[in-house]
Amino acid sequence: MQWVIGIDIGGTNCVVGAVAADGSRVVGDHSQPTGAARGADGVIGDVLTMAERTTASVRAADPGAEIIGVGAGAPGPLDIHRGIVILTPNLGWTNVPLRAILAEGLGLATALENDANCAVQAECWVGAAQRGKYVIGLTLGTGIGGGIVIGGTLYHGASDAAGEFGHMVIDIDGPLCGCGNHGCLEAFASGVNIARRARELLAAAGPSQLRDLARGDLTRVTAELVYEAAARGDPLAQQVADDTARYLGIGVANLLNIFNPDTVVILGGVIHAGDALFAPLRREVAARAFQPAVDACTIIPGALGGLAGVYGAAKAFLDQRAAGLI
Amino acid sequence: MQWVIGIDIGGTNCVVGAVAADGSRVVGDHSQPTGAARGADGVIGDVLTMAERTTASVRAADPGAEIIGVGAGAPGPLDIHRGIVILTPNLGWTNVPLRAILAEGLGLATALENDANCAVQAECWVGAAQRGKYVIGLTLGTGIGGGIVIGGTLYHGASDAAGEFGHMVIDIDGPLCGCGNHGCLEAFASGVNIARRARELLAAAGPSQLRDLARGDLTRVTAELVYEAAARGDPLAQQVADDTARYLGIGVANLLNIFNPDTVVILGGVIHAGDALFAPLRREVAARAFQPAVDACTIIPGALGGLAGVYGAAKAFLDQRAAGLI
Repeated sequence: MQWVIGIDIGGTNCVVGAVAADGSRVVGDHSQPTGAARGADGVIGDVLTMAERTTASVRAADPGAEIIGVGAGAPGPLDIHRGIVILTPNLGWTNVPLRAILAEGLGLATALENDANCAVQAECWVGAAQRGKYVIGLTLGTGIGGGIVIGGTLYHGASDAAGEFGHMVIDIDGPLCGCGNHGCLEAFASGVNIARRARELLAAAGPSQLRDLARGDLTRVTAELVYEAAARGDPLAQQVADDTARYLGIGVANLLNIFNPDTVVILGGVIHAGDALFAPLRREVAARAFQPAVDACTIIPGALGGLAGVYGAAKAFLDQRAAGLI
Repeated sequence: MQWVIGIDIGGTNCVVGAVAADGSRVVGDHSQPTGAARGADGVIGDVLTMAERTTASVRAADPGAEIIGVGAGAPGPLDIHRGIVILTPNLGWTNVPLRAILAEGLGLATALENDANCAVQAECWVGAAQRGKYVIGLTLGTGIGGGIVIGGTLYHGASDAAGEFGHMVIDIDGPLCGCGNHGCLEAFASGVNIARRARELLAAAGPSQLRDLARGDLTRVTAELVYEAAARGDPLAQQVADDTARYLGIGVANLLNIFNPDTVVILGGVIHAGDALFAPLRREVAARAFQPAVDACTIIPGALGGLAGVYGAAKAFLDQRAAGLI
C-alpha cells in the first residue's frame, strides 16, 4: 500500500503519522510537545525522529508499505512554491527552508502547506466536509486560522496568504489583537480569547460553577471549561457562550456574504461543546447573512479532531505532486 | 464583426450598448433613467426599446454586423442558472424571469448576471484589472457591491450570492444598514453614506466650503462634492475623507487577509477623487493587512466608468455560453 508521512507542526504540539494514500487510515501517529523555545533545529530534529518512528510503525503494520512522500503543515506565512516558512510568531521561526530540510532528512519528496489549510483540506478529503464544493473552514485554537477549498482544491491566493479569517476586523474599537489591529475576530472568538473573556467576567463576579470547575484558579479556565459550566447552568459561562456565538456569528455571516460557501466547517477543541456552540452560532448567522447564502450553507463541526493536520499534510503532498509543484 | 448587446439595469439608470465580441469597443450606448416606480414591465419595455435602437446603431456602424446574443446585468440576488431576478429592493422586483423575457423580446440567446459582478468582470476583461489573476472588485454607489474573479472567471459561490462585500460587518455597534444589521461596510463607505456622514457633520458645524459648494442645501452633498471640498482645503470634508479611508481600509484589509488578491479594483463615481481617495486607502490597508498580502496586491481605480456594466453584461453572455450555461 502507498503511504504518505504527514507532519503537523503546531505551536503547542507536533503530530506525525503515516496516512494511507487513499485517505482510508492513519497509522503510527506520534505526538509530543513542540518545545519551541529550543528553536527550529531542535523542533525539526524531533520531527525527523518522529517521522523515522512513524516509518517503522507503518512498515510493521504493512510489510509491503511504499512510502511515497512527506507533507508538512506549519503556521504561516509560508512560501509554498519555495517551501519556506517565512515567519511564525508562535514558533519564533524566520525564513526556515523547512521543505528542503525535511526532504533531505527523510530522503523523500516533501510538500509544505499552511497548518490551517491542511486541517480544512483534510475535512474536505476524508472528514466532515466531503460533500462540500465551496468550503470555508475555521480553526479555533490559540488563534483563528482558516482555509478555503473550492471544488476540492485549496485556494491559496496571490501569495499563499489567503484564509486568515481570524484577522477580519469585526469591531473597529474592539480589543487589541496580537496582529496589532483592534477588533479582529480572533481577539474575540479564538479558544484563548473565549477563555480570556470568561476570566475577565469572573474577576468581577462572585461565586460561579465556572470558578468551581477551575478550582478557583482562573488560569485553568479554558473555552472547553466555559462550555462545560454553561451546560451545568452557570449564567456567567452562558453569557460568555452567548457572546461567542454573536462574535463568531458575525464573522461567519461575513464569510457567507463574501464567499457564499455550501459548507462552513469549524475545527478546534471547542467544537466538543456541540450544540451549545453550534445552535446559537447557526441562529446568529441565519439572522445576519443574506437568505440565499444562508439557505445554501451548512455549518458543521470537523470530524478528524487532532489528526486533521496530519491527514491534511499528507493530502498537501498528494495535491502538490499532482499539480507539479514538487 | 460579432457583437453582443450589453444591458445594465440599475436602480437609477439603465444603459444599453453593443459590445464587440473581442471587447475592443462599444457602440450605440443608450442611457436613460430607470423609472423603477413603473414596475418591472415598464422598465423592461424601455430596455427592449433601447436594445432595438442599439441594434439599429450597430448595423449602421457595421453593415456586416452579426449580433450573437444579449447579456443583462441586474441587482441581485439572482438565480443565474434559471435566469431569474429573485429580489431587488432598489427596483421592487420579485422573481422576475428577466432572461426569458429579454430572450423572447429580442429573439436572441440571453445571459443574466449580477450587476456588480458584470462591472468587476468588465474591468478584468478590458479595463484596469486585465493583469489580475486574483481580483476583488468593489462598486461604491448607492450601496457597495462586489465581485470576485479568479483566473478570469467570475466566482459565484454556492448560490450566485458571493461578493456582497458591502455587507461585511466591520463595527458591531455601528450604524444601522439597509440590510438590517449594524456596522456593515456599506453603512459607512458607500457613496450615499459618505455623503450622509458629511451631512451629519455639517448639520452641527459652522461655515465650510462643502456647505458653500452645496449652495447651502445639504441634499446637494454627494461623495464627489466631499472630495472636491477636501481638495480645496475644507477641514470638515477632509475629516469625512479620512474617516472614509479608515472604514474602506478596514474592509479592503479584511478582504486581503481573507482572499489574498493581486488586484483590488474600486468602481463608482467617487473614484474620480483620485489620489485623495486612493493614497490614504492604500496607507490604511498597508498598515492593517498581513505583509505578504499587502506586498502581493495593487489597489486601483476602474477604467471603464459608466460603461463597465455594459461591457460586463456582454462578457457574461460570452462566458455563460462558453460554460454551456445558456
